[in-house]
Amino acid sequence: MTSPIRVTVWGENFHEQSERDRAGMAERYPDGMHGAIAAGITELLGDSAAVVTATQDQPQHGLSEEVLNTSDVLTWWGHATHAGIDDAVVDRVHQRVLGGMGLLVLHSAHFSKIFRRLMGTTCSLAWRNSGDTELIWSVNPSHPITAGIPHPIVIDEHEMYGEFFDIPAPEELIFLSTFSSGEVFRSGCCWRRGKGKVFYFSPGDQEYPVYQHPDIKRVLANAVLWAKPEQGADFVTPSVVNQPAPLINRRLIGEEVGA
Amino acid sequence: MTSPIRVTVWGENFHEQSERDRAGMAERYPDGMHGAIAAGITELLGDSAAVVTATQDQPQHGLSEEVLNTSDVLTWWGHATHAGIDDAVVDRVHQRVLGGMGLLVLHSAHFSKIFRRLMGTTCSLAWRNSGDTELIWSVNPSHPITAGIPHPIVIDEHEMYGEFFDIPAPEELIFLSTFSSGEVFRSGCCWRRGKGKVFYFSPGDQEYPVYQHPDIKRVLANAVLWAKPEQGADFVTPSVVNQPAPLINRRLIGEEVGA
Amino acid sequence: MTSPIRVTVWGENFHEQSERDRAGMAERYPDGMHGAIAAGITELLGDSAAVVTATQDQPQHGLSEEVLNTSDVLTWWGHATHAGIDDAVVDRVHQRVLGGMGLLVLHSAHFSKIFRRLMGTTCSLAWRNSGDTELIWSVNPSHPITAGIPHPIVIDEHEMYGEFFDIPAPEELIFLSTFSSGEVFRSGCCWRRGKGKVFYFSPGDQEYPVYQHPDIKRVLANAVLWAKPEQGADFVTPSVVNQPAPLINRRLIGEEVGA
Amino acid sequence: MTSPIRVTVWGENFHEQSERDRAGMAERYPDGMHGAIAAGITELLGDSAAVVTATQDQPQHGLSEEVLNTSDVLTWWGHATHAGIDDAVVDRVHQRVLGGMGLLVLHSAHFSKIFRRLMGTTCSLAWRNSGDTELIWSVNPSHPITAGIPHPIVIDEHEMYGEFFDIPAPEELIFLSTFSSGEVFRSGCCWRRGKGKVFYFSPGDQEYPVYQHPDIKRVLANAVLWAKPEQGADFVTPSVVNQPAPLINRRLIGEEVGA
Repeated sequence: MTSPIRVTVWGENFHEQSERDRAGMAERYPDGMHGAIAAGITELLGDSAAVVTATQDQPQHGLSEEVLNTSDVLTWWGHATHAGIDDAVVDRVHQRVLGGMGLLVLHSAHFSKIFRRLMGTTCSLAWRNSGDTELIWSVNPSHPITAGIPHPIVIDEHEMYGEFFDIPAPEELIFLSTFSSGEVFRSGCCWRRGKGKVFYFSPGDQEYPVYQHPDIKRVLANAVLWAKPEQGADFVTPSVVNQPAPLINRRLIGEEVGA
Repeated sequence: MTSPIRVTVWGENFHEQSERDRAGMAERYPDGMHGAIAAGITELLGDSAAVVTATQDQPQHGLSEEVLNTSDVLTWWGHATHAGIDDAVVDRVHQRVLGGMGLLVLHSAHFSKIFRRLMGTTCSLAWRNSGDTELIWSVNPSHPITAGIPHPIVIDEHEMYGEFFDIPAPEELIFLSTFSSGEVFRSGCCWRRGKGKVFYFSPGDQEYPVYQHPDIKRVLANAVLWAKPEQGADFVTPSVVNQPAPLINRRLIGEEVGA
Repeated sequence: MTSPIRVTVWGENFHEQSERDRAGMAERYPDGMHGAIAAGITELLGDSAAVVTATQDQPQHGLSEEVLNTSDVLTWWGHATHAGIDDAVVDRVHQRVLGGMGLLVLHSAHFSKIFRRLMGTTCSLAWRNSGDTELIWSVNPSHPITAGIPHPIVIDEHEMYGEFFDIPAPEELIFLSTFSSGEVFRSGCCWRRGKGKVFYFSPGDQEYPVYQHPDIKRVLANAVLWAKPEQGADFVTPSVVNQPAPLINRRLIGEEVGA
Repeated sequence: MTSPIRVTVWGENFHEQSERDRAGMAERYPDGMHGAIAAGITELLGDSAAVVTATQDQPQHGLSEEVLNTSDVLTWWGHATHAGIDDAVVDRVHQRVLGGMGLLVLHSAHFSKIFRRLMGTTCSLAWRNSGDTELIWSVNPSHPITAGIPHPIVIDEHEMYGEFFDIPAPEELIFLSTFSSGEVFRSGCCWRRGKGKVFYFSPGDQEYPVYQHPDIKRVLANAVLWAKPEQGADFVTPSVVNQPAPLINRRLIGEEVGA
């Protein structure tokens, strides 16, 4: 019997509170975007995942050492207040990812401090909010993240994210999105950093109910399964080692000298 | 409850029978190399795998349509009689891999017809059989194939396989081997082909009891878990599609014309 | 002073001759598609390239040992008569690529024998010929193949090629195409095989004058520069080596033994 | 006629000055390590490169805006005083790399601020300074960095750098090093970041005259040629774009509406 995957769904929780957006958000996401994302993962993974939420407005942005030390996978949605994230929290999340925690970076979190730090690039892109239809095509049919996903996923209306997306070449390219205006975007991308896995997935603008879409829920659930650390992971960040003892030398020297 | 992974362990079964080798083989591998490989996978995966063996000397080399159609993962060890494999069987295995079956290619099977066909290169390498110590270092700590594997695995005596290994750049590089004479080899490599996954793993010369080594058994068991198709895989080989209907055009045209 | 890159532009030369197509072909491509491709490379690379053409209807399909032995880069366009290519010629081209010759595979040559052999997959795709607009977006701004290329290239009318394109994951992904109907395609892809480089580029259907497009000419010229072998290349196909002498052992043994 | 590649060779210039090391450094590197690296590049690239040096002890560490704005390729060697580098200079180098400047990161600069920022990982490794023999094997025979390089390069005595090296998987793996004690290291690795190219090359400890080795000089000269920006590069860092106008929509809408 394996223990459930401990998933922490992190949300900026800004648009949900802002005067301008809160009415629409309450319609699309009565429990907040983080609430919807958490519910989707729970709905699809059932007992095999133990899902909690955390938000930026909580102490330590809801990401204390204790929370991170009990997180196998963290999902991150942010947009308006990236700059407000305490660098000490970014350091802590960074160390935890390098130690083995999976990280799902969602939509506008391409500009989050943690993603830019893990990528080393500007993570900039082209965008336009004009209600384009988005089609999400799979280009990696044997990858666990595409299991059970239609080709393409259709999102009737969404913000456009387009190339050039300034990221390191994905180690595994999973999804490509097209938009009714002709743009293209590498919308599902995997990387490994240290002992951890990172998945970026672009759908999920706050103005559209994208996280209620059954296929999008499925992608996130699949990505949790992919990103989780292996059984027995120690979450120790890689560190420099002054390797004490040569391996082969000794054997050879021993043999030759003793011969 | 998921059903067990159906693993077919294929062996050339030549050295086991040959006059020159059979005495030594019987000591190292009383049930044949295929028997030892199958036993190791069963030992480590238990009820989650259903393992059978097949050998080259059987009708259709033991790889009838029926056998392949009930194989989720195939392991392939061959050395002396690659040329004797019927091309129709190679075609069949090739189609099954492209349709989703995992394939583990072991040691001297770098020169097998199926591996060369999947790679598109000569798959040639440097070698020398002089009982070198081999150290197998992991360079991919978050990959499921390295779970529970020491760094390095030590094989006291083994044939040397060295670079240049003429393969396409591995999509995921898992292990690097060094030898007491200073050579290096990309000894654990992953690729995806069609809907299937391919893992090449170099340890396993017939003159050394490598498949009795507990760490080597663990690598093979991990690789079976990695290479298995996703639940619900259809095993249909990708094929050309004359895509009938545009998706976005229609919507736009409808909207505009109906406005 | 470096010597010019020797480029052989190979064409199927079928549509140019066929009763059904020859009138239209003569308009779009008065010197054949191979003639247009060759002219574009010459126009852009000038004295730094020495370009010749060869066609399927010539003896040995125009690809004798002598021709291949004096080719640094080969471009390949075929469509209707892939099956008619002599396997001995495919073998020869394959060996030359593995030995170091660059190969540019164009449009419908995704189904050519040589490309399928180098890839190891079906190379199948989705298609529809309905005069879609194609936009070609660059996702690799530091790659030499994208130098001087607009983002996107616009092709007013073209055949649609769409995903899933059954190829090994490109080692370098250069271009993504979108179509007015919403499809997407990995339209510019690089791989290395043996000592040779392979570039697949999808634009170029015979029914549209795509190779007269200045940006497409530029892509092909850039690709010739990228795919050319390094100065001093020996064009020797990698082969198995029984490596005679250990390197480090000797030194260590010598030291220890005191010899 | 193309203009020369503007190369800035940056050196920490600490061991050259330190009481403990300066006598030995003066023997191995009478003009400093940066002087030796610069001389090697000049020796091999001649008029096609214009090489200058800069050191940490200069104002702005020798890397003013003016210097960077006239650098096509920067090489970086540092070891003892990484922490002393002004973050504003790191920011500037980072922006320049993302805008298109090539960067060669040498030996102990794996722990430099700029490399860790570009990689997003700890960049930690195993090491031991016990005069091991290092063999550098090429695994990428068609890559320009390996042109004219023996297989292997032999360095009689050197510090050992071993796996696990905590870096993102190299986009192109070029060299693997083995050591007489049996360790292995991914010693030559390529990545692209933004519009720039990054090459890490591990040989070059200050206690050994590695940069006087003709094969090492050749690798660095080849790497300069690989890392240089394309002709016409604009060195503009990628940035976010609010893309104003849809491309395909307009055409379709226009056609349908009949406007």
